[in-house]
Amino acid sequence: MATSPPVTPPHPLSQLSRDEFSKARDIILRHHGSETSLFFRSIYLNEPKRADVVAFLEVEHAGTLSDATERPPRQALVEYDFITTDDHVYTRAVVDVVSGDVVSNEAVGRSSQAYFTVHELILFQDACVESELFKDAMSEFTLPEGFEVMIDPWPYGGPDEDEGVPPRYMQGLVFATDASKNNPDSNHYGYPIPIIPVMDWVTKQIVRVDRVATGGSEDGLAPEERTDAPRKLFQNSKSSEYVPELLDMPLRADLKPLDIVQPEGASFTVHPDGLVEWQKWRFRLGFTPREGAVLHDVCYDNRSILYRLSYSEMTVPYGDPRPPFHRKQAFDFGDGGIGRAGNNLELGCDCLGAIHYVDSYLAAPDGSPTPAKSVVCLHEQDNGILWKHTNFRTNRAVVTRMREFVVQFIVTLANYEYIFAYKLDLAGGITIETRATGVVSVVSIDEGKSSNYGTVVSSGVLAQNHQHIFAVRIDPAMDSYASADTQIVVEESVGQSMNPQTNPMGNYYEIQRQTVNKATWMDAKPRLNRLLKLENATKRNAVSGQPVGYRLVPPATQTLLADKRSTVAARARFAQHHVWVTGHRDWELWAAGEFTNQSREEKGGVADMVKRGDWFTDEGSVSNGTSPGDAEMGAEARRSSPVVWTVFGLTHNPRAEDWPVMPVEIQQVHLRPTNFFTANPALDVPSTRNKASVLLSCCGNADDEEKPSVQEDPAGHLQGSGPAIDARTAGAKIDD
Amino acid sequence: MATSPPVTPPHPLSQLSRDEFSKARDIILRHHGSETSLFFRSIYLNEPKRADVVAFLEVEHAGTLSDATERPPRQALVEYDFITTDDHVYTRAVVDVVSGDVVSNEAVGRSSQAYFTVHELILFQDACVESELFKDAMSEFTLPEGFEVMIDPWPYGGPDEDEGVPPRYMQGLVFATDASKNNPDSNHYGYPIPIIPVMDWVTKQIVRVDRVATGGSEDGLAPEERTDAPRKLFQNSKSSEYVPELLDMPLRADLKPLDIVQPEGASFTVHPDGLVEWQKWRFRLGFTPREGAVLHDVCYDNRSILYRLSYSEMTVPYGDPRPPFHRKQAFDFGDGGIGRAGNNLELGCDCLGAIHYVDSYLAAPDGSPTPAKSVVCLHEQDNGILWKHTNFRTNRAVVTRMREFVVQFIVTLANYEYIFAYKLDLAGGITIETRATGVVSVVSIDEGKSSNYGTVVSSGVLAQNHQHIFAVRIDPAMDSYASADTQIVVEESVGQSMNPQTNPMGNYYEIQRQTVNKATWMDAKPRLNRLLKLENATKRNAVSGQPVGYRLVPPATQTLLADKRSTVAARARFAQHHVWVTGHRDWELWAAGEFTNQSREEKGGVADMVKRGDWFTDEGSVSNGTSPGDAEMGAEARRSSPVVWTVFGLTHNPRAEDWPVMPVEIQQVHLRPTNFFTANPALDVPSTRNKASVLLSCCGNADDEEKPSVQEDPAGHLQGSGPAIDARTAGAKIDD
Repeated sequence: MATSPPVTPPHPLSQLSRDEFSKARDIILRHHGSETSLFFRSIYLNEPKRADVVAFLEVEHAGTLSDATERPPRQALVEYDFITTDDHVYTRAVVDVVSGDVVSNEAVGRSSQAYFTVHELILFQDACVESELFKDAMSEFTLPEGFEVMIDPWPYGGPDEDEGVPPRYMQGLVFATDASKNNPDSNHYGYPIPIIPVMDWVTKQIVRVDRVATGGSEDGLAPEERTDAPRKLFQNSKSSEYVPELLDMPLRADLKPLDIVQPEGASFTVHPDGLVEWQKWRFRLGFTPREGAVLHDVCYDNRSILYRLSYSEMTVPYGDPRPPFHRKQAFDFGDGGIGRAGNNLELGCDCLGAIHYVDSYLAAPDGSPTPAKSVVCLHEQDNGILWKHTNFRTNRAVVTRMREFVVQFIVTLANYEYIFAYKLDLAGGITIETRATGVVSVVSIDEGKSSNYGTVVSSGVLAQNHQHIFAVRIDPAMDSYASADTQIVVEESVGQSMNPQTNPMGNYYEIQRQTVNKATWMDAKPRLNRLLKLENATKRNAVSGQPVGYRLVPPATQTLLADKRSTVAARARFAQHHVWVTGHRDWELWAAGEFTNQSREEKGGVADMVKRGDWFTDEGSVSNGTSPGDAEMGAEARRSSPVVWTVFGLTHNPRAEDWPVMPVEIQQVHLRPTNFFTANPALDVPSTRNKASVLLSCCGNADDEEKPSVQEDPAGHLQGSGPAIDARTAGAKIDD
Repeated sequence: MATSPPVTPPHPLSQLSRDEFSKARDIILRHHGSETSLFFRSIYLNEPKRADVVAFLEVEHAGTLSDATERPPRQALVEYDFITTDDHVYTRAVVDVVSGDVVSNEAVGRSSQAYFTVHELILFQDACVESELFKDAMSEFTLPEGFEVMIDPWPYGGPDEDEGVPPRYMQGLVFATDASKNNPDSNHYGYPIPIIPVMDWVTKQIVRVDRVATGGSEDGLAPEERTDAPRKLFQNSKSSEYVPELLDMPLRADLKPLDIVQPEGASFTVHPDGLVEWQKWRFRLGFTPREGAVLHDVCYDNRSILYRLSYSEMTVPYGDPRPPFHRKQAFDFGDGGIGRAGNNLELGCDCLGAIHYVDSYLAAPDGSPTPAKSVVCLHEQDNGILWKHTNFRTNRAVVTRMREFVVQFIVTLANYEYIFAYKLDLAGGITIETRATGVVSVVSIDEGKSSNYGTVVSSGVLAQNHQHIFAVRIDPAMDSYASADTQIVVEESVGQSMNPQTNPMGNYYEIQRQTVNKATWMDAKPRLNRLLKLENATKRNAVSGQPVGYRLVPPATQTLLADKRSTVAARARFAQHHVWVTGHRDWELWAAGEFTNQSREEKGGVADMVKRGDWFTDEGSVSNGTSPGDAEMGAEARRSSPVVWTVFGLTHNPRAEDWPVMPVEIQQVHLRPTNFFTANPALDVPSTRNKASVLLSCCGNADDEEKPSVQEDPAGHLQGSGPAIDARTAGAKIDD
């Protein structure tokens, strides 16, 4: 890969170019020499320190960039396994892609398991079906003619106490597929087989096959005793197909196309270095193997709002108490990586309208850059009315439309899909949206039984109750990049007792504000309308006099239900509160800590960050009960800028309607300017009448024929009254 | 209006035809004779009794309608004032528009005040400015050259205890408008004048002009003493314009059009009798002067879901403790009527795409039918992905789009707008949406001061803190029209302590169900994931075995903050809990009772309905502590079918960004099928690739020129890498 270095140095937040990616790999190969065997996991930008980037951004936004501007070092993070005959040593190296230096190189201890890459996961099925243990377990069952085994690899979850420190494990959920259909997309999830094989990933040996219970909730937690006669599975099962050619019903024929058309093109610009501009917004689009799309340096009208916005983690614990289902607990960011699981998005399917797709690179096992094509899509959409007022005296209406700019990415995690989106709008709002869809995770249940642990979605198929709990990381830069300038304030609206002096008629309520002085967690309190204000500590709004900022309404969704003493809960302390406010540290991005795969507890996650005792204000320092730097506070504690983590989720007790593929469950978190602007920032949005909208002429009152219908279109053409007109076929008339 | 009666009798739920409307008026005119003076308020369908309609619907849905089918009587409700020399007697009559009979005629007592019609409200300004009291009050102020007084009429709110039983009052919020701009749409709300005139509506005399405080929150609650020298108002005020021609900034020029185009027409049918059909859904669209659009007989695949769905009430109390601001408490349904306040919607403004508008009639003061043109719009919209699954083994993705059918209406209440929508979707979901927009209500504040009671949004202008609390009425008919067949169950997901027998690993959580046996209220409990299940009491899902039903997630928004002892709270008991479940009674539609205008307390609202003690199950009867029919339970108590009222709201502490017209605040309530269907009802939605979507070619890595970009479109055309391409001007390429 001998290419000359680029003439203009890349922006510090630009993703690695293909050249830089390859160079990073080459540096590591050279470092280890040709004798060694390496398995590459990830190669991506090692984001520079916030302080270094901020120094650059301040020059950039001032418009004074020059060749002399100091730039942070251009580095890549390379994650790989150093393979010896009996071990794989997970290693993280930082390399300088300009100088070619290895800046750091760290072998991670065996007690922390790296995430699984796709290349690891796909080894499971073959290793499993060849194993004697698995064959023996399968001999317990008879599958119908033409059915074949199909295994979904899963992370092992949290080991039980009596397991000591197990090796790197992977477990498999076992299904059958009806191969007689000759369609590789026939849905195997309708045929679960009640065993869970466990593989030692280093030896590739199946070490154990767990049998799982298949009874109803009245049958106790243990699996049935093995019998001599094989159990005939799927005697009365029905297929659970979703691909159109296998459906046993016709597709709807009467859903007419709905097109989004932008005849003059889209309103946004994407620059080669990742800078995106749209309607006074600008940000830099990043993409990491673990997080997927990341927004950096989000600004409006050249005023900074967020330094970085990212999805951080998600945990999906299952509520079925029958072991080993407690180990069905995915951490989809930490165990595998959302960016690695990204769908290659397709035009006309995943978004409508004028779409720009963004590609990235992922590391092949040999470290070469594999194109990850169309893993993010950018587009605009309409979200109804943005603001309207009708002057009742003149009947003049002024109405504007809410245009949104959407950064969307979609991931597949075996059976399940998540659709993630960041949406920016014309009124300065930022919406963070998740949609959960895909195939719910299912296990076997004896035909005719039912269970409190889930819902029977097909004969013999139990969709287990579970939760999805997400964490979003918000690193604010509220109208300033200076780390001391952002403060977090909790605001509540509190009813007041009637009293003659301050509340004679009882209608008063008080807005109470409390600055978050030190790292802490808190819960949503809709009863108090609890909001978080992300504010500039010193700037005041020129009109309202109130602090310049954005508000975040923490969604009041159910937090983690698992008993706090359980491994499930210990691994996901982040999921036990709605909001965490922690002190900023470079590269501290993970709500549940960096290493979630096979973890027993959350280490280095938000709970530990809070415990560290960072403070944001002088009061926060004092309230620690110690003075800054005091050893009691922990060696690491220091004054920091606040980072906000918002945790929200979905308790998903499946419905019959969630099968075989579930309709999206949508959740949103809103960041809204609150005294950031001196007036509605969308006041200058034109209230242009959309010319492409058409009037569907339709029924007046058919029993009322002698009078003209009052229906009249804006151009003054009367719509004839008469019999029903089918809007599905009525000619659309253009309004001009 | 001599027209022959229609040949086919109208559907019992069809709105009055113009003929029927006129006939109803004529019946009343004839009833009173030509000597009397009548002021007509409303004429609309007197909805037949539920039981009578249900008997008809069962025949209709069985497809066996005939001339012999019994139909409920066809009646109109006529509301009018019977005017004598010194009084206006609000009167409600039911007339039979077929027989011409007056079925009932009731004069409502003076202690209950009817709502205000637009024709009453517009009398205020002229009566006010001519009054000596008002002129005297205004002499306290000097307005800038060219400014004129402009008064917004408001309901009086709840009278104070010491007022006895006041006559029919109306109050006015007084503003000035800069007439020198020669634009009738110049925004007067930027110039509040600190007086509130109160008019006796019968005599049309201003009886009092309240002066209001203009200080900051440190200045106490009383208005300043009147001084001899007139106060010069608006010395440093800025204009607060929102109409484009008066803005002091250019409109955005770079927001390219986004068109919604349905080349083959829309997918819905509207019949002349109000029947609407879309994608297996069918319902009858009603429109009433008080509620706006109402959905009747909502069915999917010919299975009934809801008998009736409507917005019922809203209260907007203001939190400024300075009298008389406690009387700023609107009940926009009961005090005025949402249907009467409906905007005439315009193509290309209020919805995009292929739109069908629905008209209605409202009563003119002489009772004649006044066309209310385009007060409801019907259209389809895309709401992103509906479901998706990617087979990671084959990389085959199947993805469908969420199409929604929207019934929208928009109302203007002086300064403020609400956008109401019912949305049906392809997956059997019903979403009830409100958007709050318009101009926030403001009062004077001395320049340079600030206040805890609101936010200064412009010099001298204080936007007061307030709440909006909505009630939606849901009358379910869960897969059956029989009133005994629907039951309401509260479902919670409850974490369980670890224990060896039932929860050895601590991951179990229990779904707890409790049937609502008798009328009651309850609050949202997101911590328990509290849902309401609206279920059929006997039908079970053929696959899951669980009760057929829909779930409602009550939004956990802040309830009413006013002290419970206050008049504000007494008038709005409905606003103090998130959910009310009451026993069905015909024509019992109003969460805060029928008469809210000038009320002192909620009468006949949901709190009274609960107190009545209706029960839904045998257990409910027993739990009353008395046997059915026992006098202690109240003469009226009886076994009924349950009606669910969901109450949600918005505590609105204004931001600078809410001025001069606020961006929408959106709230949604979701009804979702839960074991109503045996599988995802959207499984048969085609996963058709949208042909109109286009690829925006754009930047690869500009520093990476020797290699082709990995960007490639589905047709196989490479997108050239190179310098940034401005998506705003790039030619859109059609993907075919």
